[in-house]
Amino acid sequence: MKRGIRTFLTFFLAAALLAGRARDLGVPFDGTPGPLNAITDVAGIEVGQVTLVSGEGKSAVRTGVTVVWPRGKSTGTSVFGGWFSLNGNGEMTGTTWLEESGLLSTPVMITNTHSVGVVRDAYIKWKVGKLGRDADLDEWSLPVVAETWDGFLNDINGFHVHESDVFAALEAGKGGPVSEGNAGGGTGMVCYGFKGGIGTSSRKAGPYTVGVLVQCNCGRRPQLRIAGVPVGREISGDEPYAANFRHNGEDTGSIIIVVATDAPLLPNQLKRLARRASMGLARTGSTSGNGSGDIFIAFSTANPEAAKASGLANVTMLANDDMNPLFEATVQATEESVVNAMVGAETMSGYEGHRVIALPHDRLKEVLGRYKRLSRE
Amino acid sequence: MKRGIRTFLTFFLAAALLAGRARDLGVPFDGTPGPLNAITDVAGIEVGQVTLVSGEGKSAVRTGVTVVWPRGKSTGTSVFGGWFSLNGNGEMTGTTWLEESGLLSTPVMITNTHSVGVVRDAYIKWKVGKLGRDADLDEWSLPVVAETWDGFLNDINGFHVHESDVFAALEAGKGGPVSEGNAGGGTGMVCYGFKGGIGTSSRKAGPYTVGVLVQCNCGRRPQLRIAGVPVGREISGDEPYAANFRHNGEDTGSIIIVVATDAPLLPNQLKRLARRASMGLARTGSTSGNGSGDIFIAFSTANPEAAKASGLANVTMLANDDMNPLFEATVQATEESVVNAMVGAETMSGYEGHRVIALPHDRLKEVLGRYKRLSRE
Amino acid sequence: MKRGIRTFLTFFLAAALLAGRARDLGVPFDGTPGPLNAITDVAGIEVGQVTLVSGEGKSAVRTGVTVVWPRGKSTGTSVFGGWFSLNGNGEMTGTTWLEESGLLSTPVMITNTHSVGVVRDAYIKWKVGKLGRDADLDEWSLPVVAETWDGFLNDINGFHVHESDVFAALEAGKGGPVSEGNAGGGTGMVCYGFKGGIGTSSRKAGPYTVGVLVQCNCGRRPQLRIAGVPVGREISGDEPYAANFRHNGEDTGSIIIVVATDAPLLPNQLKRLARRASMGLARTGSTSGNGSGDIFIAFSTANPEAAKASGLANVTMLANDDMNPLFEATVQATEESVVNAMVGAETMSGYEGHRVIALPHDRLKEVLGRYKRLSRE
Amino acid sequence: MKRGIRTFLTFFLAAALLAGRARDLGVPFDGTPGPLNAITDVAGIEVGQVTLVSGEGKSAVRTGVTVVWPRGKSTGTSVFGGWFSLNGNGEMTGTTWLEESGLLSTPVMITNTHSVGVVRDAYIKWKVGKLGRDADLDEWSLPVVAETWDGFLNDINGFHVHESDVFAALEAGKGGPVSEGNAGGGTGMVCYGFKGGIGTSSRKAGPYTVGVLVQCNCGRRPQLRIAGVPVGREISGDEPYAANFRHNGEDTGSIIIVVATDAPLLPNQLKRLARRASMGLARTGSTSGNGSGDIFIAFSTANPEAAKASGLANVTMLANDDMNPLFEATVQATEESVVNAMVGAETMSGYEGHRVIALPHDRLKEVLGRYKRLSRE
Repeated sequence: MKRGIRTFLTFFLAAALLAGRARDLGVPFDGTPGPLNAITDVAGIEVGQVTLVSGEGKSAVRTGVTVVWPRGKSTGTSVFGGWFSLNGNGEMTGTTWLEESGLLSTPVMITNTHSVGVVRDAYIKWKVGKLGRDADLDEWSLPVVAETWDGFLNDINGFHVHESDVFAALEAGKGGPVSEGNAGGGTGMVCYGFKGGIGTSSRKAGPYTVGVLVQCNCGRRPQLRIAGVPVGREISGDEPYAANFRHNGEDTGSIIIVVATDAPLLPNQLKRLARRASMGLARTGSTSGNGSGDIFIAFSTANPEAAKASGLANVTMLANDDMNPLFEATVQATEESVVNAMVGAETMSGYEGHRVIALPHDRLKEVLGRYKRLSRE
Repeated sequence: MKRGIRTFLTFFLAAALLAGRARDLGVPFDGTPGPLNAITDVAGIEVGQVTLVSGEGKSAVRTGVTVVWPRGKSTGTSVFGGWFSLNGNGEMTGTTWLEESGLLSTPVMITNTHSVGVVRDAYIKWKVGKLGRDADLDEWSLPVVAETWDGFLNDINGFHVHESDVFAALEAGKGGPVSEGNAGGGTGMVCYGFKGGIGTSSRKAGPYTVGVLVQCNCGRRPQLRIAGVPVGREISGDEPYAANFRHNGEDTGSIIIVVATDAPLLPNQLKRLARRASMGLARTGSTSGNGSGDIFIAFSTANPEAAKASGLANVTMLANDDMNPLFEATVQATEESVVNAMVGAETMSGYEGHRVIALPHDRLKEVLGRYKRLSRE
Repeated sequence: MKRGIRTFLTFFLAAALLAGRARDLGVPFDGTPGPLNAITDVAGIEVGQVTLVSGEGKSAVRTGVTVVWPRGKSTGTSVFGGWFSLNGNGEMTGTTWLEESGLLSTPVMITNTHSVGVVRDAYIKWKVGKLGRDADLDEWSLPVVAETWDGFLNDINGFHVHESDVFAALEAGKGGPVSEGNAGGGTGMVCYGFKGGIGTSSRKAGPYTVGVLVQCNCGRRPQLRIAGVPVGREISGDEPYAANFRHNGEDTGSIIIVVATDAPLLPNQLKRLARRASMGLARTGSTSGNGSGDIFIAFSTANPEAAKASGLANVTMLANDDMNPLFEATVQATEESVVNAMVGAETMSGYEGHRVIALPHDRLKEVLGRYKRLSRE
Repeated sequence: MKRGIRTFLTFFLAAALLAGRARDLGVPFDGTPGPLNAITDVAGIEVGQVTLVSGEGKSAVRTGVTVVWPRGKSTGTSVFGGWFSLNGNGEMTGTTWLEESGLLSTPVMITNTHSVGVVRDAYIKWKVGKLGRDADLDEWSLPVVAETWDGFLNDINGFHVHESDVFAALEAGKGGPVSEGNAGGGTGMVCYGFKGGIGTSSRKAGPYTVGVLVQCNCGRRPQLRIAGVPVGREISGDEPYAANFRHNGEDTGSIIIVVATDAPLLPNQLKRLARRASMGLARTGSTSGNGSGDIFIAFSTANPEAAKASGLANVTMLANDDMNPLFEATVQATEESVVNAMVGAETMSGYEGHRVIALPHDRLKEVLGRYKRLSRE
């Protein structure tokens, strides 16, 4: 049955890719993206996703796993990293060691709230499978797994992510375009009252590239701003959650933001980058509500010796004074990733018949045009 | 001579108050401000400012001190508080104890970078004067003093803030309207390439009020967004720093943001509020550049027993789940405070003849109108 | 088969309890313990443990789960809490939300490194079982699960902790004496080169009680100090790890420390308490080595309204100035818990025939006596 | 008059140096110190101190300034650094930028609580004097100044540290032996109820050196442990504060700890080192009382390109896995520095006739001998 799902998904995701991206609709963004306008523009990064869609009603499965491999799935993953929690109503495992060591030693894995554990242990088991049963303690036993809550569309209390799904997502890592919207961990997510999920974008910053990937599940419709325009107020109606949420209309949900760069930054500098994701998110209207797990991680693929096991490592550091273009790039790519997560998503029905509409592309263009903010026709 | 300056200032500041505020020009903001649309809408808060303007060229003094008294200057100041550093290229003394104790036990004082020390020690001396020479050690000996750098307009290396100025600012604390723009610690500050300085705003959030005061010295012209409109690109020209700054065009400078509320929040909840100031700032275009000291403090005037010296204090806490309106209010009031700092400022010339123009009100209205974002005529 | 193990364990643990505690041997400690000298002296706290011991050689299972219920397993668990990482080479999930909210909303669960995930998800599933399939999102979906590494004695790569074990540990929560040494999550742990595991202790601090529970897996033999005496150097020989560890002789391993109190402390005050665990640990000789996951959590069972879902909660706060006795109590109870973990443990053989000896009680008494540090005969 | 004081001090401090050090008395310490057993064993470090002793009764001046120059006073000071607050009832300015940038760009200056401001601004003025009036904004305008409270012996409310004293301390920087006890910022300090102040020590750690300098003003007599022996209980009597302190007998006071190394550590690794100072302090008996400002800073003199102003810096990093010897060294050197601060101090009378006795060397030896902990005769 799973195989059937995935066959279906291949078609489904291809459609999602065809749906276009925010800038194809004429949404104006600052800065210059890389060739893919995706986190995979940072050389070496691979993304693997498993998307689980099956059933209806009480048995609706709408979830998955997204994996970001900093140096690719076959060559090991230790990179300098840092993290920031804008509002910590969420989980990102592995951050205690990341903070201590300055190293990200596993891929960043993202799934739904109730599947963090299975993804975490499955990664270790996958690694044991690669390294052998007698493999010694190492940093890969403290993996980084994050989540947002997809229980509006997904039967989250059914625990539908299994070890084999995690293995598949890990093995699926590859460069190139990244499926957005209803894909991987983002399959069942809702963003500003529209269907959301995975979004990505990138920016050139001098000789460097900054890539961002988000799993967007945050915000309420009236908050949404795109290119500074109050789009969420202009496109009202069909809001999910309306009847059965105590905090109806308030900012809730969560967003995980992964910031990658090939600029040679030290761990403390990567924390600086992670904090800037807040400002890109803010541009889309969020105020990071109490219910939101807005947790951000940044890493650098430079410095191959970063995780040298002993002795002295030769490291290159970009001067703090030269980080401004990277800050701008992070804010811009975060903003665009959030919009891409909505533009790339499709209307979805799921758990108990709940339905979340996709952001209507035509109306978005019409509203932006009215506010003189459409970059082209 | 100082007296002469102050006489001049009385006239000058009255003019600044007459200059109007951002919403008077038709800038659209979300939410409902309090009666003064100022931090002093939070009951009990007093603000005292001393503005020092004299001389020209190498001797140009354009600086001052702004004091925010959480419970007023005569009744003591201990309140629950928390802080956050978005980009820590700046100083805010007293934060180590604030973080440890959860208490803000002195007023928040803001001045220029090179005068933090004199303001700090002068506050202690002022307190010794009140309590007597044999007064015992207490938390008031770890005062909170923050700064931004005014060396473009002010002879900052001349160290022109004196003990007596600090005493005057402390004694000047009062409720009511707050002078904006070229006032107090904000006298010589530059904000998005326009004359900036002190700005304030407030919001009603259910039964509570959130008030914000900023000392705005951050950003570059092209970054400036007001109400989502790229105002900084539309109103170019007359930018300061053009010739002599290595990071010309990049985000630099700093902003100190003080968030006050009468909502009964615990110290950890006030840290949450402080973090939201980032998102209000982001709405105005900042990416918090490397050179920026973007440091935020939040406090609550509720809980008179917060700083009970011994035994058990009765404390009221608002549930985390009910904080969303306060988050919204903080973001909104921060955004408006930044714009008010520019709208309330006047063109100023100072150190070595440097000149910074005020944001031209007519052009701002014209641009907002063009983008359909002027709230009224 | 599992039932057989547990039957065996009932006998085994009873033996462990009979083994006595550190102060019964005459080890001198400061302060006054509660009646049980255990974390369960803090009223309402329940501890549940599942101990898994079976097999030999490559199939040796020596692991388990320890659960600390702040308010008991039947009445919900939300309490004020805070945490601290002295050296973060370890995992404690749920800390991002703990830091954000100031609330500990699940029990604290401790297991081996590779089983954190299964324990985490199993707790959610257990809760879903209690609340029903349609239960709404709440803080209990971000559980606190910590670990230390037991791979020297346990087939950790065999993933032997199962969902049912977690359920059993959750249901096993009860007051009264706590099994120490080779029990629960501590089953396969090694402490200063002696068999370690679970240890507990408590202190009276005026009207309040502080209780500590540790899962001790840290340190190397030469570091060990008991009552200030260099016991580890006096009792050498039979050290584990000798041959096959690169960092032979260095501080490694990990310790999880849970600090509980009925004193009415706010979240920021509980972080202060958690930091003091470092100082109790230091008294036993540790320098918190690079490989150590030394992660501490503190909570207060006071303030039943701490986690009120909405509106205003009435909260009591002990003045910061009155916290000193609690700091002393935390340091003292931590120190004694670590020693109890060793004194209460039994020699164990496990994975690949590895063997770790128990701290020999007679030699400990002899050494302390020689240094005039034996409190009684 | 100041000159007279200093002449007197030259003699006085020479006497203090003659008083010997803790290990000369036979106090056993682990590890191998450098040739000076001082922070100045780390190549390039210079220490400058100004000691102010004059007057009696209400006019008793017993204070000063201690300056630690990471790379010496003439060659600039930017080094990688990190900090940690064990209990933040104190001030260390400049830490916000230190945390952000990972750089310590000024000397570390230590004085009394009420003189932090004058020392801070004086450093900037001194730097302006060196660089010229038109010198541009740079990191040296956010200096690191820390304090402990000397108001028991010193007329702290008389504000007796002046700009010229700070200049003198800055210029006094030199390598070689460091005056301990009643010297510099430590002049009026009290440590575990004995006269304390400045103490220093160092350790070899493989090819590297770790040096520590403390300004010790913390603890109460009954807490004091030396070499694990309860010295404070064995040598009772003559305790200061007895009558007039509310928290009589409790841990109070403060300690500033500066950890220096030539090991090539990154900023996040230096935070790890700073945290270890807690464990050295704990070995001497402290529980870091509520009134204590226990604030620690660590820096590395390696990596001359650490503060490169722009572009790419070549940096060397020691692998995390190789840090254990540095952790041990930090704990050991901190422990010995605290004992040295007491052993090196002289009985002092001061403000209002208060008197604090020095730790009696003969009794210390006698007590250690009784507990079999005297290393030699």
